[in-house]
Amino acid sequence: MSIRVGIFGYGNLGRGVECALRQNGDMELVAVFTRRDPSTVRILTENVPVYHADDAMKMADKIDVMILCGGSATDLPVQTPALAKLYNVIDSFDTHAKIPEHFANVDKAASEAGNVAIISVGWDPGLFSLNRLYGGAILPDGKDYTFWGKGVSQGHSDAIRRVEGVKNGKQYTIPVESALEAVRSGENPELTTREKHTRECFVVAEEGADKARIEAEIKNMPNYFADYDTTVHFISEEELKANHSGIPHGGFVIRSGKTGWNLEHQHIIEYSLKLDSNPEFTSSVLVAYARAAYRLKKEGTCGCKTVLDIAPAYLSPKSAEELRASLL
Amino acid sequence: MSIRVGIFGYGNLGRGVECALRQNGDMELVAVFTRRDPSTVRILTENVPVYHADDAMKMADKIDVMILCGGSATDLPVQTPALAKLYNVIDSFDTHAKIPEHFANVDKAASEAGNVAIISVGWDPGLFSLNRLYGGAILPDGKDYTFWGKGVSQGHSDAIRRVEGVKNGKQYTIPVESALEAVRSGENPELTTREKHTRECFVVAEEGADKARIEAEIKNMPNYFADYDTTVHFISEEELKANHSGIPHGGFVIRSGKTGWNLEHQHIIEYSLKLDSNPEFTSSVLVAYARAAYRLKKEGTCGCKTVLDIAPAYLSPKSAEELRASLL
Repeated sequence: MSIRVGIFGYGNLGRGVECALRQNGDMELVAVFTRRDPSTVRILTENVPVYHADDAMKMADKIDVMILCGGSATDLPVQTPALAKLYNVIDSFDTHAKIPEHFANVDKAASEAGNVAIISVGWDPGLFSLNRLYGGAILPDGKDYTFWGKGVSQGHSDAIRRVEGVKNGKQYTIPVESALEAVRSGENPELTTREKHTRECFVVAEEGADKARIEAEIKNMPNYFADYDTTVHFISEEELKANHSGIPHGGFVIRSGKTGWNLEHQHIIEYSLKLDSNPEFTSSVLVAYARAAYRLKKEGTCGCKTVLDIAPAYLSPKSAEELRASLL
Repeated sequence: MSIRVGIFGYGNLGRGVECALRQNGDMELVAVFTRRDPSTVRILTENVPVYHADDAMKMADKIDVMILCGGSATDLPVQTPALAKLYNVIDSFDTHAKIPEHFANVDKAASEAGNVAIISVGWDPGLFSLNRLYGGAILPDGKDYTFWGKGVSQGHSDAIRRVEGVKNGKQYTIPVESALEAVRSGENPELTTREKHTRECFVVAEEGADKARIEAEIKNMPNYFADYDTTVHFISEEELKANHSGIPHGGFVIRSGKTGWNLEHQHIIEYSLKLDSNPEFTSSVLVAYARAAYRLKKEGTCGCKTVLDIAPAYLSPKSAEELRASLL
């Protein structure tokens, strides 16, 4: 019998989960929930119903795991604890500073209901967190480095679009190659924000807008751009559509550490992602952890977990015997 | 109270464990066991006793985890099941094809005694296995690639030294850069053994030996060299000592996979290690998993595990709260 999955929220991430479920033979999409009028939402899978978000509770006995695909700012802090009372849930909550608070809220709800919740699933937080943990545990005398990109930052793209006179825009975060090389060489450099990443913006200006003013406003925007070397390119709407409509991303987690009686030996552990589609990859991680949540629940576990708490074998559809014979 | 660790076997790996324990404040070396005459074995740590291997059972109430540092060919198949009857144990058993059999033997011994055993710990098997598992679970439509090197292969160096007329020798396994690049590009190439790695040998010949015959014998050696492009360099014993006495190693695990409704998006997950000292890095992994074994035992778990069965958080000395706040 396959694992019955619901999708809560049908944007880029929800569509990604839908695609990922199709790639996993032991899982099945049984319903999509949306806050829009369900009759206006067309999904890719045939013969799967779309319900209104308010009807979520009606499927409690027909869904093994609900995958939440809302945003971290306002959706998930409310939705994950609420739905954890009804379902095993997975979310990709990624406001790093608020994870402890979110964890506590979700843990309370899931524990009381006897459900399993896995939060902050994806690649950062998620796979990158795992690599920071493994790296630090194995090489305690060392230093962690995380670089992001080359990829589209949604938050920075939104910030560009809020500048007066900007019609559309896309921002790429780019790791500085020389900084990456310094880290890989084992130099353990102290790197400033500016030394680690550059930011490249592709901007469509409104007709007659003052481009010099727009460029200056972007480059000096506090938090978003002021601490970085930022490049601004003005392009046409057509060019933006043609060359910058993808959502690629990726990055690097590098642990540089020493071993030996006198710390005389250097080691570099590097983990990197190069992703054509950030939401589809994140969705694929969510789906693998949905399998883990289902299994943990069947074992009688409950409460909130993160990727750090989940034994890797729970993610794979293969049996423990198969895994030992084929992967070790 | 610190975790009390014993080392069973004091070669390169045992010394590496000794060094790694010094880097982990929550762990303590309490005894070393050797098959040699203990009075002839000098260890690095002060005030820690060296016992004969036959006396292992005498410390059963003073050691929380025994780390086995013997070889996979003949030592570990016997030692790990035997010691799992007395202790929680960790080993680095790396004969891939025999892991299921070894697992069964160790599981029986550990389960009967109520101890925890974690086998095949290190980087391959070990960290590389983890990455093959995570990669495959997240990107089910994809392909795994493992490359080793650049690094010293002990088995191949031994094989060189068995050739008549060879006084000493060292072999490096080297991944083929163009093959790595083809994999990273998402081409999903089918690669033969010869296309993935080259082998480079540094050989010290005995005086008057027939070098042409030695070179031919190495290059045509079945299993070890015949399927590879092999280079043989004849050097002096001094040169070998000066330039080839280290034990570096490393490698790459790459998952190349597709997502999307029509598999239209490509993703590359790459994990790589660049290690100055293969035994010291492997030892560092063993020590992190010793912490996990200790905790699992305290929780009441028993039986044989592999890295695939261990939730990452067990490896870190930090609490779950600290990990969530700092790593996620």
